Amino acid sequence: MKALVYHGPGKKAWEDVPDPRSEQPTDAIVRIDTTTICGTDLHILKGDVPAVQPGRILGHEGVGTIVEVGSAVTTLAKGDRVIVSCIKSCGRCAFCKQAMYAHCLGDEGAPGVGWVLGHLIDGTQAEYVRVPYADNSLYRVPEGVPDEHAVLLSDILPTGFEIGVQYGATKPGDVVAVIGAGPIGLAVIATAGLYGAARIIAIDLDEKRIEQAKKFGASDGISSRDPNWRDKVMAMTDGFGVDVAVEAVGVPETFDMATEIVRPGGHVANVGVHGKPVLLRLQDLWIQNVTITTGLVNTNTTPMLRKLIAEGRLEVGKFITHRFALDDMLASYDTFSRAAETGALKVVIAR
Amino acid sequence: MKALVYHGPGKKAWEDVPDPRSEQPTDAIVRIDTTTICGTDLHILKGDVPAVQPGRILGHEGVGTIVEVGSAVTTLAKGDRVIVSCIKSCGRCAFCKQAMYAHCLGDEGAPGVGWVLGHLIDGTQAEYVRVPYADNSLYRVPEGVPDEHAVLLSDILPTGFEIGVQYGATKPGDVVAVIGAGPIGLAVIATAGLYGAARIIAIDLDEKRIEQAKKFGASDGISSRDPNWRDKVMAMTDGFGVDVAVEAVGVPETFDMATEIVRPGGHVANVGVHGKPVLLRLQDLWIQNVTITTGLVNTNTTPMLRKLIAEGRLEVGKFITHRFALDDMLASYDTFSRAAETGALKVVIAR
Amino acid sequence: MKALVYHGPGKKAWEDVPDPRSEQPTDAIVRIDTTTICGTDLHILKGDVPAVQPGRILGHEGVGTIVEVGSAVTTLAKGDRVIVSCIKSCGRCAFCKQAMYAHCLGDEGAPGVGWVLGHLIDGTQAEYVRVPYADNSLYRVPEGVPDEHAVLLSDILPTGFEIGVQYGATKPGDVVAVIGAGPIGLAVIATAGLYGAARIIAIDLDEKRIEQAKKFGASDGISSRDPNWRDKVMAMTDGFGVDVAVEAVGVPETFDMATEIVRPGGHVANVGVHGKPVLLRLQDLWIQNVTITTGLVNTNTTPMLRKLIAEGRLEVGKFITHRFALDDMLASYDTFSRAAETGALKVVIAR
Amino acid sequence: MKALVYHGPGKKAWEDVPDPRSEQPTDAIVRIDTTTICGTDLHILKGDVPAVQPGRILGHEGVGTIVEVGSAVTTLAKGDRVIVSCIKSCGRCAFCKQAMYAHCLGDEGAPGVGWVLGHLIDGTQAEYVRVPYADNSLYRVPEGVPDEHAVLLSDILPTGFEIGVQYGATKPGDVVAVIGAGPIGLAVIATAGLYGAARIIAIDLDEKRIEQAKKFGASDGISSRDPNWRDKVMAMTDGFGVDVAVEAVGVPETFDMATEIVRPGGHVANVGVHGKPVLLRLQDLWIQNVTITTGLVNTNTTPMLRKLIAEGRLEVGKFITHRFALDDMLASYDTFSRAAETGALKVVIAR
Repeated sequence: MKALVYHGPGKKAWEDVPDPRSEQPTDAIVRIDTTTICGTDLHILKGDVPAVQPGRILGHEGVGTIVEVGSAVTTLAKGDRVIVSCIKSCGRCAFCKQAMYAHCLGDEGAPGVGWVLGHLIDGTQAEYVRVPYADNSLYRVPEGVPDEHAVLLSDILPTGFEIGVQYGATKPGDVVAVIGAGPIGLAVIATAGLYGAARIIAIDLDEKRIEQAKKFGASDGISSRDPNWRDKVMAMTDGFGVDVAVEAVGVPETFDMATEIVRPGGHVANVGVHGKPVLLRLQDLWIQNVTITTGLVNTNTTPMLRKLIAEGRLEVGKFITHRFALDDMLASYDTFSRAAETGALKVVIAR
Repeated sequence: MKALVYHGPGKKAWEDVPDPRSEQPTDAIVRIDTTTICGTDLHILKGDVPAVQPGRILGHEGVGTIVEVGSAVTTLAKGDRVIVSCIKSCGRCAFCKQAMYAHCLGDEGAPGVGWVLGHLIDGTQAEYVRVPYADNSLYRVPEGVPDEHAVLLSDILPTGFEIGVQYGATKPGDVVAVIGAGPIGLAVIATAGLYGAARIIAIDLDEKRIEQAKKFGASDGISSRDPNWRDKVMAMTDGFGVDVAVEAVGVPETFDMATEIVRPGGHVANVGVHGKPVLLRLQDLWIQNVTITTGLVNTNTTPMLRKLIAEGRLEVGKFITHRFALDDMLASYDTFSRAAETGALKVVIAR
Repeated sequence: MKALVYHGPGKKAWEDVPDPRSEQPTDAIVRIDTTTICGTDLHILKGDVPAVQPGRILGHEGVGTIVEVGSAVTTLAKGDRVIVSCIKSCGRCAFCKQAMYAHCLGDEGAPGVGWVLGHLIDGTQAEYVRVPYADNSLYRVPEGVPDEHAVLLSDILPTGFEIGVQYGATKPGDVVAVIGAGPIGLAVIATAGLYGAARIIAIDLDEKRIEQAKKFGASDGISSRDPNWRDKVMAMTDGFGVDVAVEAVGVPETFDMATEIVRPGGHVANVGVHGKPVLLRLQDLWIQNVTITTGLVNTNTTPMLRKLIAEGRLEVGKFITHRFALDDMLASYDTFSRAAETGALKVVIAR
Repeated sequence: MKALVYHGPGKKAWEDVPDPRSEQPTDAIVRIDTTTICGTDLHILKGDVPAVQPGRILGHEGVGTIVEVGSAVTTLAKGDRVIVSCIKSCGRCAFCKQAMYAHCLGDEGAPGVGWVLGHLIDGTQAEYVRVPYADNSLYRVPEGVPDEHAVLLSDILPTGFEIGVQYGATKPGDVVAVIGAGPIGLAVIATAGLYGAARIIAIDLDEKRIEQAKKFGASDGISSRDPNWRDKVMAMTDGFGVDVAVEAVGVPETFDMATEIVRPGGHVANVGVHGKPVLLRLQDLWIQNVTITTGLVNTNTTPMLRKLIAEGRLEVGKFITHRFALDDMLASYDTFSRAAETGALKVVIAR
């Protein structure tokens, strides 16, 4: 089959590789019908994620059709149309039993953390993929939901909702500020209404992204180029700051911004992937009764978000900016990696 | 009356001052029967808390007898024996209505934050004190509870319990590590059992303090001088770290230690008062689903802890290491300030 | 002044009475600009609430202007435009400190439960009203919010939201069934989206009310006259029943219906006012891990709902079906009491 | 092998039956080393549980040694010493993923509810038992924990803790009343301290059981034969009633008692198995903001309780009143069924 293979920093190829084979009784083999690219894939290609070995097929998002199930798979069958979750879950380790699938221990079939696809084992940017613990790592696509909506349930929607909105403890009436209006920030904005946020403030360097954020549900936008940006945030609250400040960039400056606008008793939810330590102003914050959270998505809300999409309560089509055929994988990477220029949010790559 | 007056960095005196007078209809005047000294008072004396002006009477802990109540005080009367909470609460601002008394806005009677006594207005290390919002800032002493136990409810017990145990989200079966076995760390240790902690690990540089911690409820102790201290902590868990890591010192090193031993999905509860920023290893922690909390005590658990003491379910006598008369205030400060030498935890100063 | 006075079962008059006078330093006198009638007022007039004595001015909802404040009122002033909450809160008793204002103990100014207006003391269907504990029982009307929207915050909106939606533990993705699509059921329906309900099913005997419910946010409607009503509910879930079943009528039959459609692990939230015991099928339910809640509104969410209305996030105008002048109080009662015929939901009575 | 076989109402035999055989790749075969009898077994023998067919081997509690595992079992191996949970969990259905194992849907290996052993499939009162979904339904016995303590984790301890203490929302400082001081009531009493209950009141008809309850952690006891029993309960609170009232009998009278002593805002946790409906005084309770819960144990706290026992933080030996050999199964039933006379709590039956 064809697959997108990582060959070390800066090198990738869409090339012929052997078809995946079932290894464990809990495995399924899925024919990929639709996949997409995540910012994390770009990080891997830069060499930022050393655990990814050359020769690895990338990709941890996808929708497809089951072509084979192992003997211990009981809830799925050949022919089922499924979402491949970016997080595998063995369903039996201590972390899985607490719905912390991000830290699934797994076993010989897929050890270590929850994120293995396109990381520790071959991923979804391919014609076929082996999915470990299929019963717990695949989700049926509801009738009427198109692949390109379903594929947003692999990673971006549960990540924005769980690590931004839920970890931020968003509650009805809250003022939520989202720093960084890229795809993941938009996923936070698009789902903050599920807990009744009263105001959602998009903060970004780029005015165009701020405008775009309003289409996803932001009620307000502030340019972080404005030297008075913080005062403007405060003016949108009762003067004490926001209830929830979501960091959706991954650099020290934006994390610091989040801690500057959170109110006493408020929450800072870090969603960004960080490569460096940050200086935490604990001399000011120790007395502020603030809560700071971090996290990799558990995907425990995937079935719930799927239901909202199926019921038409969560419109997600606007995340999709470009569409490619599977054989145009390299072109899709080119478009996605030049997002500032192309305006790419999610590029859909379909068979 | 006599009072302990701050006269600028390094200077204090036990001297004659005018008696306090009622200023607002919600005030009470309390005759202090028992007071004590907090580590924060030593910080003030070093000049670390610039909001405290020379001339200020120090002290935010005390038990006494009401000698006068304002016209709007309805739940208390002259002669009532009361605990003076370190936090005043107006009972009507947005923060008070969410039980975040630490951030009580108050009004003309006592503006600003919740902690005003011995900070923004005159405090309890005196023969009498004016207490604003008496109905919400004073708590009746139950019959049978001695003053020297009740005075621990002014600050240290609710602080350890709320900011350490509760903000740490301690739950039955948890492994809790407390870094720093001074008075406030011991208050965390003494109350962690209220949420059923399975193991409580005291971590300190000082072996004597570790031994003492075991008398307060620690099941294990580890010297942080031991280069393998972290491995030892891990060995006391399932290898993934503690559920709750409480920082009870207030320096960057101990905060960092807390983040090194917390498990995926675990909590770091900062109780220490910090004067400097700390470097947060977000490059490691972003993926760990950890929660970090900070806080000044709200004292919303004071009535509950009072009930446990009255019922004999919380033994607190062991906090008291020294006793002084009110007129020996300066000697009590001397003993408390040389705690490493004198072994002082709480010094009780009684009329 | 003029007021609507209860003169025993079946008897009421719009008549001259003495103006209210301030009694406690925490009181305010409010000139009523807008008031409305609640189903409870009709119960009182039938004699169903014996605690209401003849001579009592009815009404516990209103918006008005402060004309006088007591000496201990610090957050409000003469001239302020305010919402009168149906629940008074002293802000200092054990129940108020836990935000359970429904059970406020109060003191000599207004003893007993939280609901006193138009019940134990004179109410708001008058030209003026005395409001005890003004700082905690009145809420400023935000600029731009009309009286007739603000008056819905006195009772109906917080009741539907707190006792239906919150006590029902509604969470994103839930299927919520509301049994009874009268005013209070509609308040539940209108606010269930604040916790991201996926489907909201209105169940009623009356097809017209079901259609109306869809305008308030119901996604589905089922006639309880249909012998297969329960099967229809089940078909709208995964076959196990609804996550949240809200009883919004107040008779044994509808309570029983709620327990018949709740899923294992689900919630039954009783909002209806009951006059009779109900037979609880505990022989079936003991094993179902269900939660049943009851409650009088605490109004602790009033400021939050006010913010949502001010931000335009909660449209409430559709609750208002009729408008009257204050002097047409008796006509407004007539229209409201014949709701089945007149279609009255909330009748607004304005100065 | 030998097993205790149900032969219809009133009929049981300790007789030869075929050995169990592995049926699914997720099964394990366990040699029973220790088992015990539950009150539910007596109900079955009376014919109260029609789902139990004649020919069924009874028993849902046990500790044993694995003699065989299926091909998909990855976390356990032959020779492991394990606790057999009374609830099976497939680890993959919607209920299991929310830790509601009591309602595990399972599949062809063990359909229906979570409780299947000794109910829908053969149970543990036998020399060997087939356990479906072994990875999720068996728990390793920690070193140093004797079988007769471990067997209490099969059912009684998690039931008392989850359905009584946790569903009752017990929190530090609470007054908890437990109505019925039989084995399950004692399990509630023994674990209420894990959430810091201030007072635990045992209420029973039998003075001897009340005295016994004090050895399990009750601070107070009240005879329900006393016509003033309710006044006595009220006097042990602030006059408003208990925070948590646990029903641990299973008859209408005791359920009603629980609703009579719960405070506004309090919880009634039903643990008892009911065979009849109960009359719920909703005409009084609708305004009381009470929460009523029911439930079959999920056993999601089994690993946590196991840890507390292993750490010596939960002493459970006192539950064991009698010991029998496996071949004396009928004698053990005789002793257990005459508990009023023999004082039996848990009878341990060991190989």
